[in-house]
Amino acid sequence: MQLSHRITHLTGGGSDGWEVFYRARQMKADGIPVTELTIGEHDIGTDPSILAAMNAAAVGGHTGYAMVPGIDTLRDTVAARVQAQSGVPTTRHNVLITPGGQSALFAAHNATCNAGDTALFIDPYYATYPGTIRGVGAVPVAVQAHADNAFQPRAADIAGVASKGAASLLVNSPNNPTGVVYSRETLEGIAEVCKTYDLWLISDEVYDTQVWEGEHISPRALPDMAERTLVVGSMSKSHAMTGSRCGWIVGPEEVIEHLINLATHTTYGVPGFIQDAADFALNAGDELEKEVAAPFERRRALARDLLANQNTVGLVPAQGAMYLMLDMRATGLSGEEFANMLLDTHKIAVMPGESFGQAAHGHIRVAMTIPDDQFLAALKTLCDMAAEISNKRAAE
Amino acid sequence: MQLSHRITHLTGGGSDGWEVFYRARQMKADGIPVTELTIGEHDIGTDPSILAAMNAAAVGGHTGYAMVPGIDTLRDTVAARVQAQSGVPTTRHNVLITPGGQSALFAAHNATCNAGDTALFIDPYYATYPGTIRGVGAVPVAVQAHADNAFQPRAADIAGVASKGAASLLVNSPNNPTGVVYSRETLEGIAEVCKTYDLWLISDEVYDTQVWEGEHISPRALPDMAERTLVVGSMSKSHAMTGSRCGWIVGPEEVIEHLINLATHTTYGVPGFIQDAADFALNAGDELEKEVAAPFERRRALARDLLANQNTVGLVPAQGAMYLMLDMRATGLSGEEFANMLLDTHKIAVMPGESFGQAAHGHIRVAMTIPDDQFLAALKTLCDMAAEISNKRAAE
Ligand SMILES: Cc1ncc(COP(=O)(O)O)c(C=O)c1O
Ligand SMILES: Cc1ncc(COP(=O)(O)O)c(C=O)c1O
Repeated sequence: MQLSHRITHLTGGGSDGWEVFYRARQMKADGIPVTELTIGEHDIGTDPSILAAMNAAAVGGHTGYAMVPGIDTLRDTVAARVQAQSGVPTTRHNVLITPGGQSALFAAHNATCNAGDTALFIDPYYATYPGTIRGVGAVPVAVQAHADNAFQPRAADIAGVASKGAASLLVNSPNNPTGVVYSRETLEGIAEVCKTYDLWLISDEVYDTQVWEGEHISPRALPDMAERTLVVGSMSKSHAMTGSRCGWIVGPEEVIEHLINLATHTTYGVPGFIQDAADFALNAGDELEKEVAAPFERRRALARDLLANQNTVGLVPAQGAMYLMLDMRATGLSGEEFANMLLDTHKIAVMPGESFGQAAHGHIRVAMTIPDDQFLAALKTLCDMAAEISNKRAAE
Repeated sequence: MQLSHRITHLTGGGSDGWEVFYRARQMKADGIPVTELTIGEHDIGTDPSILAAMNAAAVGGHTGYAMVPGIDTLRDTVAARVQAQSGVPTTRHNVLITPGGQSALFAAHNATCNAGDTALFIDPYYATYPGTIRGVGAVPVAVQAHADNAFQPRAADIAGVASKGAASLLVNSPNNPTGVVYSRETLEGIAEVCKTYDLWLISDEVYDTQVWEGEHISPRALPDMAERTLVVGSMSKSHAMTGSRCGWIVGPEEVIEHLINLATHTTYGVPGFIQDAADFALNAGDELEKEVAAPFERRRALARDLLANQNTVGLVPAQGAMYLMLDMRATGLSGEEFANMLLDTHKIAVMPGESFGQAAHGHIRVAMTIPDDQFLAALKTLCDMAAEISNKRAAE
């Protein structure tokens, strides 16, 4: 009577640079005021109009089992949205509604990877990626995107690993943690690698409404890619509905059919009243989405102005999503060292780049998820501390 | 680029006796009035007081990511409930909140079965069981409970299969589809087998509030069983919250810790406002639960009276849950043949016993999920048709 290898090895072991996060949480729990720039979650709640739609649906009787694939109205709405974004013909039969983007990531890997298969992903990465892959018994293998290429992954690097055999490649643009939006060139390179090495492409596009520079391109829209691409979407980031757990997978019909079978055995659908709320939100026009995205765009502009006035801290092109990736290498410290020092000295918590893999060492991730004035003050403190360290270092 | 073996083989293939269900659905879609006695879902919605609690929580701001293990209040409430039922000391650290019982079943098998491991379950079974096991790459092996033992599984039968090696055993009492509540003797036998062959016991207790005869005993309460038992519970059946997708796993702390890791990578928690609603419902006293269970208890009594006046159709001891299992063997027909004939002749849809495995052949399952008068009328028609067939047969 033992637990499965799959579950006991899910988190891989190793410290992962998350101590600073847990230390900050503990300090807060102990009553110490900490400025948290760690979390990928809005400082606003779900819009009251969305909650009203949810309540109306529930009180109106939508409280029984909803269809496992998702309700027709929401599947249609998601299909139309994805088609409008990408130009690829899309119907409800290409759409499975899932309880959140994370659940979609898990299902996509369950569908595409046999036990023991290699599943590729790009480093730096969203924290759950390797565990999601291990959760289906596959083997996570990271391909680094490099700071010197502005964290755009290079096709040749992916090909180098894919040539040894892999079932899938997971990419994420707009990217967490780097804030980078993949260029057309990057995505075309990725598409070629997928076709050459016969990979499934799992495209995590949960930040698709948060693009400040450049253009969100879904790889599903590239030639011959729709048949091998599974797009992961979510209401979490676009509509500040993180707690509602509502997302989707868009992919080829045959894959969706199998994924519906899987959903029958893993989640048995998503609450109907939540799907009604999501459908309301997606049909409410751009207003709601813009309102949710605006604070991040605004804070990014504030941060760029501030960072333009110093030359210790480097800003990775902040093209999308709710994060800034800062290059701290001029301090001579690792991201983890800097983050720990910042927490101890100034009670400001940020995520070390090392907590997202190997590639972002010497960097830190700053979430733009607190009010503007506090955000700016914290960023200023951070820059001042960095300058001080770097000046001391130069003087030595 | 192929789909995983796991997902393409999820549903096992074979007709499974579900055509009659889909035929009935199609007839309804075509505008033909069909009396459906097929579905394991209440004919009432979720209570307005529960929905009000949900709305209050959402409007009150509980719309962000909830803690992945579940919110403390609900974990505490579930722990207290399970402890009160079973006498086993239980804290929140023994509880993981899941998006529904199905998700708990999947997680429990993911945690206990390696790819290729044998996972046992009892036939007749709830439709998702084999696919849930295949969904984690394990091999489902059924052990039959026999009509001649009133569908109580025999420990010796389980031991016979377990002795060839297995990781887990899944049991379900009160049982879907048979309506049988496992006796203490049955459960003690099962416990012995689990200890002898070192099996995890996954105990699906989602019908624990629907017991009309005998007593619900959780195997977790039996000597030395808490350490190897994972209890699956749900708000679906007890509180008519099927559409809310809220359930739980109760088990040893170490297992729950690993299951929290898994949840981080599969579902990322359950909506906070739904958990608040569940917590409200569980603390609302017995009233709500009794109100939800009452129609089934009442219809069961009506059915017993009706069936007492004939001797073609046999009633499997209807001790719990929302179903009656009827023995149709006196008609000489299979469950599937009878169900198809009933649908064609009288537009009444029931589930063939064969759709729940091998053991309930010659039986049909009748869900007590329509208003009393319609339920009784349909049952009468069913009995009359059975008598006619059996009389004709006797005359031949
Ligand atoms: C890159 C990325 N993908 C997926 C998710 C999961 O989002 P959800 O499960 O809330 O839809 C997140 C959340 O932080 C994320 O950053
Ligand atoms: C025996 C049994 N277990 C589990 C479930 C799943 O219930 P839920 O996922 O709605 O909690 C059902 C639903 O019909 C069932 O009959």
